[in-house]
Amino acid sequence: MNTKKVAIVGASGYSGEELVKLLLNHPHAELVAVTSRQNAGLTLGQVFPKFASHPKSKALRFTDPNAAVLAKQADIVFLALPHGVAAEFAIPLLAAGCTVIDLSADFRLKSAAVYKEFYAHDHPAPDLLQKSVYGLPEVHRDAIKKSNLIASPGCYPTSILLPTIPLLKAGIIKPAGIIADSMSGVSGAGRKAEIDYLFCECNESVRPYGVPKHRHLSEIEEQLSLAAGSPVVVQFTPHLIPINRGILTTLYLAPHEHFNDAAGAAKIGEQVAAAYQAAYANEPFVRLLEGKALPDTKNVEGTNYIEIAWRLDSRTGRLIVMSAEDNLVKGASGQAVQSMNILSGWPETTGLV
Amino acid sequence: MNTKKVAIVGASGYSGEELVKLLLNHPHAELVAVTSRQNAGLTLGQVFPKFASHPKSKALRFTDPNAAVLAKQADIVFLALPHGVAAEFAIPLLAAGCTVIDLSADFRLKSAAVYKEFYAHDHPAPDLLQKSVYGLPEVHRDAIKKSNLIASPGCYPTSILLPTIPLLKAGIIKPAGIIADSMSGVSGAGRKAEIDYLFCECNESVRPYGVPKHRHLSEIEEQLSLAAGSPVVVQFTPHLIPINRGILTTLYLAPHEHFNDAAGAAKIGEQVAAAYQAAYANEPFVRLLEGKALPDTKNVEGTNYIEIAWRLDSRTGRLIVMSAEDNLVKGASGQAVQSMNILSGWPETTGLV
Amino acid sequence: MNTKKVAIVGASGYSGEELVKLLLNHPHAELVAVTSRQNAGLTLGQVFPKFASHPKSKALRFTDPNAAVLAKQADIVFLALPHGVAAEFAIPLLAAGCTVIDLSADFRLKSAAVYKEFYAHDHPAPDLLQKSVYGLPEVHRDAIKKSNLIASPGCYPTSILLPTIPLLKAGIIKPAGIIADSMSGVSGAGRKAEIDYLFCECNESVRPYGVPKHRHLSEIEEQLSLAAGSPVVVQFTPHLIPINRGILTTLYLAPHEHFNDAAGAAKIGEQVAAAYQAAYANEPFVRLLEGKALPDTKNVEGTNYIEIAWRLDSRTGRLIVMSAEDNLVKGASGQAVQSMNILSGWPETTGLV
Amino acid sequence: MNTKKVAIVGASGYSGEELVKLLLNHPHAELVAVTSRQNAGLTLGQVFPKFASHPKSKALRFTDPNAAVLAKQADIVFLALPHGVAAEFAIPLLAAGCTVIDLSADFRLKSAAVYKEFYAHDHPAPDLLQKSVYGLPEVHRDAIKKSNLIASPGCYPTSILLPTIPLLKAGIIKPAGIIADSMSGVSGAGRKAEIDYLFCECNESVRPYGVPKHRHLSEIEEQLSLAAGSPVVVQFTPHLIPINRGILTTLYLAPHEHFNDAAGAAKIGEQVAAAYQAAYANEPFVRLLEGKALPDTKNVEGTNYIEIAWRLDSRTGRLIVMSAEDNLVKGASGQAVQSMNILSGWPETTGLV
Repeated sequence: MNTKKVAIVGASGYSGEELVKLLLNHPHAELVAVTSRQNAGLTLGQVFPKFASHPKSKALRFTDPNAAVLAKQADIVFLALPHGVAAEFAIPLLAAGCTVIDLSADFRLKSAAVYKEFYAHDHPAPDLLQKSVYGLPEVHRDAIKKSNLIASPGCYPTSILLPTIPLLKAGIIKPAGIIADSMSGVSGAGRKAEIDYLFCECNESVRPYGVPKHRHLSEIEEQLSLAAGSPVVVQFTPHLIPINRGILTTLYLAPHEHFNDAAGAAKIGEQVAAAYQAAYANEPFVRLLEGKALPDTKNVEGTNYIEIAWRLDSRTGRLIVMSAEDNLVKGASGQAVQSMNILSGWPETTGLV
Repeated sequence: MNTKKVAIVGASGYSGEELVKLLLNHPHAELVAVTSRQNAGLTLGQVFPKFASHPKSKALRFTDPNAAVLAKQADIVFLALPHGVAAEFAIPLLAAGCTVIDLSADFRLKSAAVYKEFYAHDHPAPDLLQKSVYGLPEVHRDAIKKSNLIASPGCYPTSILLPTIPLLKAGIIKPAGIIADSMSGVSGAGRKAEIDYLFCECNESVRPYGVPKHRHLSEIEEQLSLAAGSPVVVQFTPHLIPINRGILTTLYLAPHEHFNDAAGAAKIGEQVAAAYQAAYANEPFVRLLEGKALPDTKNVEGTNYIEIAWRLDSRTGRLIVMSAEDNLVKGASGQAVQSMNILSGWPETTGLV
Repeated sequence: MNTKKVAIVGASGYSGEELVKLLLNHPHAELVAVTSRQNAGLTLGQVFPKFASHPKSKALRFTDPNAAVLAKQADIVFLALPHGVAAEFAIPLLAAGCTVIDLSADFRLKSAAVYKEFYAHDHPAPDLLQKSVYGLPEVHRDAIKKSNLIASPGCYPTSILLPTIPLLKAGIIKPAGIIADSMSGVSGAGRKAEIDYLFCECNESVRPYGVPKHRHLSEIEEQLSLAAGSPVVVQFTPHLIPINRGILTTLYLAPHEHFNDAAGAAKIGEQVAAAYQAAYANEPFVRLLEGKALPDTKNVEGTNYIEIAWRLDSRTGRLIVMSAEDNLVKGASGQAVQSMNILSGWPETTGLV
Repeated sequence: MNTKKVAIVGASGYSGEELVKLLLNHPHAELVAVTSRQNAGLTLGQVFPKFASHPKSKALRFTDPNAAVLAKQADIVFLALPHGVAAEFAIPLLAAGCTVIDLSADFRLKSAAVYKEFYAHDHPAPDLLQKSVYGLPEVHRDAIKKSNLIASPGCYPTSILLPTIPLLKAGIIKPAGIIADSMSGVSGAGRKAEIDYLFCECNESVRPYGVPKHRHLSEIEEQLSLAAGSPVVVQFTPHLIPINRGILTTLYLAPHEHFNDAAGAAKIGEQVAAAYQAAYANEPFVRLLEGKALPDTKNVEGTNYIEIAWRLDSRTGRLIVMSAEDNLVKGASGQAVQSMNILSGWPETTGLV
């Protein structure tokens, strides 16, 4: 099988570190460059002692990010940069013929106006918004295959979209009134020196934030609208909890069909089960839980899997769907590698199981 | 001021331990007895090293629980026992003239049928259900004053009822469609030797449980129905997170009045603010957050306070209310002491600030 | 009883916050000023939501630290500042007649040369080193009573000195070869925005640091030398563990008398027990554990107590002593308040139990 | 390369679970049986949801442990059982021709008398003690190659032996006076339903235990005596800290040669460095840290690596050596797989990197 040279821009954050781990162990990707302004000159092993035993840990040194240099080194460049900055790098890399897999929000939306509404600055490359593909393989696999600009989804959106899209597409739930309540580990805030994310500020603490208009709503709503065929507005509340990794999302959904007893629930339950089976029975990274099992982030920690379970409540007529993922893997770097596998023609699970 | 003799039945669990702490430091309550089958014979200091420096730590020994003996020793008996067992103790204690403050679910409901539906066994003392008072001081203070049987509320219910009742009473929100999404620390599961609550099973984990019909729904719905003047059905999802203490609840509520812009939100916001001010401006243990502040369990850890904040979302037309409390204090033992203060004629904050 | 006005310079760190808590609830101290450059202008309740229900939370505003202003406001000033900076504030405050209780290392040593060796800069006020008293009440109570400049001990030193000094004074152990191995919660690193203390860097991690010459060695060795009557050199290794609060220290000590069996151990054990009884039987904050009990930081969390237990090992001829304290209370702010109580003529436990 | 059939007896504990993970992903080992009394009949995926996406998760069912049955199914049987019980299984398995890799303490000692002293019961199969090989590959690789009964080392012993043995063998340190101070994550206590290991008992807690004579001392001392060529007695103190996985050990060692300045330290430092280089430069799983780096359990979590760093203290004349490992991998299951690779003739790192 062919091998490709890959680079990571912004490799010293948590997503970047996870990408390093995945790409170091990927049989077809050769990690040729890692960049980080503050760590330029240091070896991989010096910055990340956990990788010190890897054969490349001494040879691979962090460099200052430079698009022109990277374009010569790598076939595929992963951008693990803040929004706004990512787009600036993507432009010359694409122009030079590289494939770009961006983990920021810069290419996730089709509308520059919505981008500005949620990210508070003009989009640096609005023309590229029509060319990029939202890198959720379970939904956009065919488009990913042909794309050279992947917008890898956000961590919260992944945990919300995968459980919801099949139900909207199958017409089982109403597009209106969707509520997503999520809890995230602290790595989601990035490796930033801020008081709010110190150990003592997060340990023995749980708190909501970004209420009621978190930035991830923009891509959640765009993707759900696409699935529903009509505009979808979502209620979304993220919470910070004291774990390193993991997102647990609980979704409150309204089936079109009214039910208030076990028989009604059973009928809708068959539809829900069928929709999930149709969508995910053959998906390597979606785990539909059975029986009494409910999602737990510890079951997916360090993996690219997402767990999904659901319950119908005949007292309220609602469908409750719960998901668990590792925010740094399926919610970020693992999913980005999954897209790389797809567009490179490699088996989709390569380096991920 | 008068002093009363108090006893704790089931003092070796987490709620019991917190009660011990509060009562040891209470200026008007004299802790005369603590019971625990497995610790009978041991001193307070032996069972709880943290209390070993208290003057009573050596003199006070755990005994086997015996209602007849307790009735002679104590004026007020706190029951920190499993449901079902608590009622068995309450009957003779009440008969002997004691005041009973029960931390279990046994006297929280008015209907023995609902009790059986949610707790899966016949109520041991249905006659007492009409005599007991639901010990939520901010709502039932006057009834607590005159009662000798207090059903101290559950931890989740407290975190849900206090934010919701003023809005229902003021007619601001619809009684239908209420959703409560809660996260609780592990002490809520009690000091029980079960694999599910081992450190390694809870650390780096977040998981929903009891979906969709947790037992606490019964008292939540009864109290909200009372406030609304009509039957209320609630959607409630508890989650277990790796903290020792604390509950964070996020409520999704629907204002009667439609709004979809800042002006509409401002108008309803005035009503919400007024309802909370009217209900809680003078309440010593309810903290209405201002400005950008959102609840955080670490701000109420070890205290009897509950933090409440709210946001109106003009994109969805919903009101989001969030609360944070310490599940063992305001959610259990602190609230029980608050009721004791009220019915004893002591200042309500005695021993709690 | 008289009341004194007190101020805290540097009140926004973890020790400062704990001091605020203790002084707000102290019956004889009136907290009149809190300073913090970055929070100047904000109220106590805005900076620390946990204090928002206290009567002073709105009235008391953080100010920029200004010694001249503070000297007019307060009788006693607590300095919760970095070393070097603390001394600069102490000079004018003392000159203006204030009592200064310093939580930094600036006045803990008698020798400016040792200070420079360990803190890498000239001491800003070497003349004051002879006037200051090391604020370890169990050892220097009489001197504290008469002092107006208290150097409150470091967190690690407290956990090491209290278990060791009585044994050295009684001549039971050799002054040579003392080893102290300590584990500290992350609050010991202060509320500083540094990557190393982010939640994800500390959670699921344990690591030594400052090996082999941590700054606290200077005061540990000075105080132990004083107790032994001869120079003492100590081996000290601190470790960072993922808890908010608490220090656990394990000491490896060599009794003068050789022993290698139960009888020998019993004989030395009597001496050890007698030395601890003589030193601490009447100390309100030292808890000598009995039977099989061993120290645990959770038993002293949020309190001014220190737990001490010991074991003789007849296989190695060593005495193992273990202690547990809350680094922010007995290891910092609680001990500082204890000194304040002593020098003010108030009962020593005022506001601390 | 050849493939072997392997089984795990006692696969539902933490070590067993880690073994399952490693063996499921091992290219030459085919996991054919997992046993567990309480989970008999359940599939792998039901007991461990984290393995539910593995091809074998539904086909492989837990069975009641039965040596006769296992002997027919497997070439190699891993025993993850309590001491005492393990030996009972080993006897018939060995008799039937299986290779046994035991993770308990049953075959780690050469002396049945020492076994009885530390484990408080007679050894069930004293004859086998001379046949078993202590499965520390870096020390006993050649013997492992030829053995069919491997006693895989304990978690604490591994963290102590690997840093100490090369120094003893090289004659750099004195065999007398060795002190090992260790901190372990809670998984070391096993998946047992005991109050002491509940989340709320371990979180925000650090505590010593088993002082001064922990069972692991027996194998530590036997192996160090072997390396030193003379009897070695060790001081060992384990502590429990709130992490899932990881052991950090700090060793206090005395070089034969006296030194009290930088020059003396440099000279001994060269010897230490040379001894470690000679022992471990080519060892795939020993990571000798360089420069200012110190061990941190988070750098080895989930891996078979052990980190080692050392410092000479010219103030005390001591050598401080620190190590970090994952107690479930290098300290248990990973090391057991490493032995399996060696005795099977597979590359030693197979399935472990």
